[in-house]
Amino acid sequence: MKLYVVGLGPGDLSQATGRALDILENCQVIAGYTVYIELIRERFGSKELISTPMKQEVKRCRLAIEETLKGKSVAMVCSGDAGVYGMAGLIYEIAQEYDPIEIEVVPGITAACSGAAILGAPLIHDFAVISLSDLLTPWEQIEKRLDYAAMADFVICLYNPSSKKRHEYLKKACDRILAHKDGSTVCGIAQNIGRDGERGRILSLKELRDTQVDMFSTVYIGNSTTRKIAGKMVTSRGYRIGGDNG
Amino acid sequence: MKLYVVGLGPGDLSQATGRALDILENCQVIAGYTVYIELIRERFGSKELISTPMKQEVKRCRLAIEETLKGKSVAMVCSGDAGVYGMAGLIYEIAQEYDPIEIEVVPGITAACSGAAILGAPLIHDFAVISLSDLLTPWEQIEKRLDYAAMADFVICLYNPSSKKRHEYLKKACDRILAHKDGSTVCGIAQNIGRDGERGRILSLKELRDTQVDMFSTVYIGNSTTRKIAGKMVTSRGYRIGGDNG
Repeated sequence: MKLYVVGLGPGDLSQATGRALDILENCQVIAGYTVYIELIRERFGSKELISTPMKQEVKRCRLAIEETLKGKSVAMVCSGDAGVYGMAGLIYEIAQEYDPIEIEVVPGITAACSGAAILGAPLIHDFAVISLSDLLTPWEQIEKRLDYAAMADFVICLYNPSSKKRHEYLKKACDRILAHKDGSTVCGIAQNIGRDGERGRILSLKELRDTQVDMFSTVYIGNSTTRKIAGKMVTSRGYRIGGDNG
Repeated sequence: MKLYVVGLGPGDLSQATGRALDILENCQVIAGYTVYIELIRERFGSKELISTPMKQEVKRCRLAIEETLKGKSVAMVCSGDAGVYGMAGLIYEIAQEYDPIEIEVVPGITAACSGAAILGAPLIHDFAVISLSDLLTPWEQIEKRLDYAAMADFVICLYNPSSKKRHEYLKKACDRILAHKDGSTVCGIAQNIGRDGERGRILSLKELRDTQVDMFSTVYIGNSTTRKIAGKMVTSRGYRIGGDNG
């Protein structure tokens, strides 16, 4: 009777860990967002599968917890890492309302890391991860974080940089950052990570400001040592070294 | 003739992705820090193995690049993710000095994510990753980042929180953060991730300040919505929700 919250990494199952796949192999029920359940159906179709669509995350958590309370071993799957803007937090919060169950989070590769690998090595030094979605966070809070992250010269990784209703948000975010970082700052966009159409693009912060990205993109804004090397986005390991090289 | 820079995740190979293991299976040469080469020797001992000790990272990169230029397929292995304080950046920087080779970074699970999974769900919302090592970064730069990250109410994840020569650094870092975050802020320490003695501990920021951690620890400082739930460290998905719940 245990609930695993399992990150599958980006794209297909070759990007999941052996431990994550072992847990799916050995559990009785797999719950998840419809798209991820389809992803695992071929290999794990013999399990009891529970899926709910987007925006029914709370219901999905309740179903998974209730199956666990019936004495089954249950895996709730997420793309990327379940602990980064993922379902792990919600599971703990909602589980408080029920009899105690054992919960284990099984990490996966989050988009910050898988997108970075496509672009080169942007996250080699201190970085901040910020979501531009204002669904659960006031935009003023997001702006404040962008300001401080830029002032601190963090490499900045943006999740949810755009959606149908929010196509101006990346431009607004770049304008905040441009108040503190140079327009020539090396930036990158990782698209469709681990899927068909996977693509990395390197551009300046000034160019990024005027670029439309889709919701399958992760965006990176370099620090003052980030350079374009052989077509890749590469951040220096340190400031003394950066100074020596640059 | 290709050089892969491969993250193995934390601890044993069950935390590596299928893709990472496929690459090790199919390459001719595996290079890495002595400790990681020992980790893979049992399974991949039939390969040509190249190891160099700590602080010989540059030499290790040169050896890997030179083997690649001989026409071999080479995998440089790192623990965690090769792109987060890892070897991927150095490989790109040093490869500039040689004839062009193809380089691919293969992501792994970084300590921020694997440690978070042990503690619960601390990184559910925006976060900053900061290394306390001042080997390549001036301490003033690190302090500035701690200040801004605390002011922005990021969850903060600290790499390299301590070493033999730097046992006071975590205390100094906590003092910077205490200027902006409450002493009751929920914090966590993940130790020996994926290894014998793996352990998570939840404590307040005030307690963390007076705690000695070793170099095999990753430290987490919550944001204003982070709570202790059923013995775990859990950050809320958002501020409106946090406000409703809290």
